[in-house]
Amino acid sequence: MLATVIHAPRDIRVETVPDPVLSTGADAIVKVVAACVCGSDLWPYRGVTPTDEPHRIGHEFIGVVEAIGEDVAVVAVGDFVIAPFYVCDNTCANCRNGVSTSCLNGGWWGSDDRVGGFADGGQGERVRVPLADGTLVVVPGPVGDDEVPGLLTLADVMGTGHHAAVSAGVSAGDSVAVVGDGAVGLCAIIASKRLGATTIIAMSRHPERQALARRFGATHIVEERGAEGVARVQELTGGIGADRVLECVGTKESMDQAIRSTRPGGMVGYVGAPNGGPELPVRPLFNRNVGVNGGVAPVRGYIEELLPDVRSGAIEPGLVFDLELPLADAAEAYAAMDERRATKVLLRP
Amino acid sequence: MLATVIHAPRDIRVETVPDPVLSTGADAIVKVVAACVCGSDLWPYRGVTPTDEPHRIGHEFIGVVEAIGEDVAVVAVGDFVIAPFYVCDNTCANCRNGVSTSCLNGGWWGSDDRVGGFADGGQGERVRVPLADGTLVVVPGPVGDDEVPGLLTLADVMGTGHHAAVSAGVSAGDSVAVVGDGAVGLCAIIASKRLGATTIIAMSRHPERQALARRFGATHIVEERGAEGVARVQELTGGIGADRVLECVGTKESMDQAIRSTRPGGMVGYVGAPNGGPELPVRPLFNRNVGVNGGVAPVRGYIEELLPDVRSGAIEPGLVFDLELPLADAAEAYAAMDERRATKVLLRP
Repeated sequence: MLATVIHAPRDIRVETVPDPVLSTGADAIVKVVAACVCGSDLWPYRGVTPTDEPHRIGHEFIGVVEAIGEDVAVVAVGDFVIAPFYVCDNTCANCRNGVSTSCLNGGWWGSDDRVGGFADGGQGERVRVPLADGTLVVVPGPVGDDEVPGLLTLADVMGTGHHAAVSAGVSAGDSVAVVGDGAVGLCAIIASKRLGATTIIAMSRHPERQALARRFGATHIVEERGAEGVARVQELTGGIGADRVLECVGTKESMDQAIRSTRPGGMVGYVGAPNGGPELPVRPLFNRNVGVNGGVAPVRGYIEELLPDVRSGAIEPGLVFDLELPLADAAEAYAAMDERRATKVLLRP
Repeated sequence: MLATVIHAPRDIRVETVPDPVLSTGADAIVKVVAACVCGSDLWPYRGVTPTDEPHRIGHEFIGVVEAIGEDVAVVAVGDFVIAPFYVCDNTCANCRNGVSTSCLNGGWWGSDDRVGGFADGGQGERVRVPLADGTLVVVPGPVGDDEVPGLLTLADVMGTGHHAAVSAGVSAGDSVAVVGDGAVGLCAIIASKRLGATTIIAMSRHPERQALARRFGATHIVEERGAEGVARVQELTGGIGADRVLECVGTKESMDQAIRSTRPGGMVGYVGAPNGGPELPVRPLFNRNVGVNGGVAPVRGYIEELLPDVRSGAIEPGLVFDLELPLADAAEAYAAMDERRATKVLLRP
């Protein structure tokens, strides 16, 4: 089959690789309907993280089950499924606590799982899915082709934006500022509105993303950064800062912006993978009782909650996809996101 | 009147100082019934923070109102009152949000307030209390002398321990680990039990403090530190770590201990004033979805909630005082705490 392989920074190729096979009994083989490129895929693409040898890449996909192992009881051949960006059993103590990203038996796409061998990366034609009953969520059919972008966001970005809002404790009547206008930041706006926030401030300088932010529920746009950005957020929140600030970038600058934009006693919800590991400055947090909560988003646990709203059209996260390409053009998908010509690219095998 | 003055590290004197006088109209003069020495008073005592010139010290006291300004409406002469360790109006946006330590009009004992001049430090015979209606909480009389230690803890340590538990989100059935066995850590154990925690792990190496921790509700004692301490907490919590960890020290080591002892998806509540400003390591927080919440405790807002339980004896935070001295012996009070001969010292003018 065909799948995407990264050979080196800015060297993305779609190549013939071995077909996946069932191995553990708990596996499924899923034929990919759509996959996408994640902001975090750009790290090895840009050389921020090293690529020592060619390897498979990708971790967001939806598809149809083609085969199942003999121990698979929930998922059936023919089911349309959403895979979160990781593997989990959905039964261990951490999964039961809602932190399936810390599953005691889980793993990551594009690497060896502990018992069954290699689990494909998702940017390909098929994937071996370990722990299929825990990992996959079935979408009751029939599934329309126009539903594909929205459903695909539940594999990562919509659930991740939701996690930022949940981690910050967004609730009815809150003021929320969102730092970052990428796909996750935009989904965090959707999530904030859905959870009842009444003031939603999008920090964005891009006219097209500003427009999408407004469509998703942003009530205000702030273009300023740094101290000026903090001052603007305070102006819009009675002089004290936002109740909740959602950090959806992952740099030291964006985290500082988030912390300083939060009111005393407020909370930063963060999901931007810390790029280079910025440390959190404890004194400004302590003095103003600003909390920081979040991390790698356990989206598996959010899919059932968000799915009805995606299917009904109550929320429209699929709009974050502004480019669709065939899998064969994966290299162009990476380039478009790297050069910020696209917010989020959908790939069809 | 007599009051405590710090001249230099380890140079504490009780001296005659001017009597406080009403100045703003919103003030009260409180005759101190009892005051105490805070762990944070040891910072200048030990020279960790500089003492450039002699100045008044102390910030925890209870007493009886002797005089009020013409704008004071709630507090009356003769009232027995508890003062939190700071001044606040209890009406501004931050106070209404429960963060009276960030009061827009507030201030700190032992320094000039913005409009009325100097506000005494509390380790003295009398105090000028700015914003008396906001700052002071009246204890309905009569107040027994045996109630003094318990009531005095509401000025700081009991409310601060409670804030650690509230910030961490302690609720019924939780497992909680408490890092730090000083007065605040011991009060955090009381607070955790009061909020319904069923497993309460005290990390302590002092036999007397261990005994008090058990009396307050600790179900387990862990003497180990570092990786061994983490392993012991995990053993006691189904292998994953505590739901909530309360950091009541304020050093880099104690915060690291707290973060590593928390289960994925759990929360660290911290109230230990960051000594030297340790930064928080974001990667271990992000990867395991461990949040950090807390800060300088807004105890003013907790006094009404905790007062009935203190008065009924349902909780016994007054037991943290293991030494009582006359105000004239303030120097010995500091020495006893500095040398760890006492956990917490009560001073009587």
